[in-house]
Amino acid sequence: MRVVAVLAVLGRGLIPADTPFIKSDDLGLTRGDGVFESIHVRAGRPWLLDEHLARMSASAATLDLTLPPLRELAAQACSAWPGDREGVLKLVLTRGSESLGTPTAYATVNPVPAASIAARDNGIKINTLSLGVPVEARKDAPWLLAGAKTLSYAINMATQRYAMAKGADDALWVSTDGFALEGPTSSLVWRSGSSLATVPAAATGILPGITARFALDNASSMGLQATERMITVEELHAVDAVWLLSSIRGIAPIKSIDGVPLRDFAADTARLRAMLGF
Amino acid sequence: MRVVAVLAVLGRGLIPADTPFIKSDDLGLTRGDGVFESIHVRAGRPWLLDEHLARMSASAATLDLTLPPLRELAAQACSAWPGDREGVLKLVLTRGSESLGTPTAYATVNPVPAASIAARDNGIKINTLSLGVPVEARKDAPWLLAGAKTLSYAINMATQRYAMAKGADDALWVSTDGFALEGPTSSLVWRSGSSLATVPAAATGILPGITARFALDNASSMGLQATERMITVEELHAVDAVWLLSSIRGIAPIKSIDGVPLRDFAADTARLRAMLGF
Repeated sequence: MRVVAVLAVLGRGLIPADTPFIKSDDLGLTRGDGVFESIHVRAGRPWLLDEHLARMSASAATLDLTLPPLRELAAQACSAWPGDREGVLKLVLTRGSESLGTPTAYATVNPVPAASIAARDNGIKINTLSLGVPVEARKDAPWLLAGAKTLSYAINMATQRYAMAKGADDALWVSTDGFALEGPTSSLVWRSGSSLATVPAAATGILPGITARFALDNASSMGLQATERMITVEELHAVDAVWLLSSIRGIAPIKSIDGVPLRDFAADTARLRAMLGF
Repeated sequence: MRVVAVLAVLGRGLIPADTPFIKSDDLGLTRGDGVFESIHVRAGRPWLLDEHLARMSASAATLDLTLPPLRELAAQACSAWPGDREGVLKLVLTRGSESLGTPTAYATVNPVPAASIAARDNGIKINTLSLGVPVEARKDAPWLLAGAKTLSYAINMATQRYAMAKGADDALWVSTDGFALEGPTSSLVWRSGSSLATVPAAATGILPGITARFALDNASSMGLQATERMITVEELHAVDAVWLLSSIRGIAPIKSIDGVPLRDFAADTARLRAMLGF
């Protein structure tokens, strides 16, 4: 079990981390109606905070919510976390208690799960699982909240549980027409020749990954060109290197897809990992 | 704003309704990872409680959760609610606080929203909106949680907001291949000749509606035969009567679909409404 280490609530500041402060009718709880970000804390500071706040603001707007200023709250929470220990800063905004009608916002800092740290060194086995949608079905349907990081993650969690029950470490969602999309909590990034590539977010409705974006923006430091394109699962088996990138686990090299081992690409992983600082 | 009127928490019993008792790391909040039921309270008692508990147990199983006995908790909550006033009993089960590792379960009773009561008399205008999925894409994909009533309702709420922003009262989800599915918080039921019909849940992944089930099980009392079948939106415009049924609003006659008025079927509505007791 993880221990909640730090809790800061907007309007209240730092309070003991195990304080119950959410009411029974908070729409974040009863409807998963809210947004969040998980941010890597390194050297006592949240990494890529601007990018996370920008995405959280966009997610909130998709739900007709306004993101309150959370920069100070994030700093408050991180100030109570040991500077020499990596951590997970989570920022949460909900539509709030139905009876009060004001949004709920808070920040927590927790340890990085041991399994996440192990995945960076050891890699992961993934299974592909259908997301049930054709690759472009969500493009012009804003009510489906594609690209928003909402609190409604039950399917994300269930997909990971299902993959793990089958002996994998994580899942990769695919469209009904055979294209790779994203992991339930991560972005797909691969190297193919001189390209460092990921799946386009706007066309497919996947979450625009912040770590993936950072990697592509810095592709030239690895002598590579950044590319966004669709890829089938079949093609994915043949690329030079493939990872799931995310904010907390950072970089997870994929060892096998649906039980089929991939070639070794440890040298690529070492270079990408160094670039990301994980 | 609605006022939370009654709150009973499993293991604590009745406590003041505005007590904050949920922690920041409750997975029901941070991941929408839990299940719920909304149950109509009439004459001081929850209507169709057995059916709701059975569906909640099935929803929980889909999420690898075990439903604790909630019958006594439901009775406790209802005992504190005025017997002459209809109400909404909500039962909630979450995976619980990550730090504690034990599920959270509670019951609330609130007034029925005024808009729900008005919809029974006045009917509703609905807009069709894509759910982004082919009609049978979720059939063999248990990780997509089709048919489970989870706390991850952000898309359901966003779909209703989108429809309302366009001047409708509610939405009807349709598949990418043109079949009517369900409302974000209701089931589609229609009369066509001597059939009282709804959409099959198992094949399509929609939530099996309890009020719709009750209506079909009692169709013979209206001289009708119960039918489950797929229907296109085009066909729906031509049926004899069409409603959205749900546990709290009960029966909402559909006045128009995508701005196109339907024929008058007030006599059907009166008979179905009497059968349902709303």
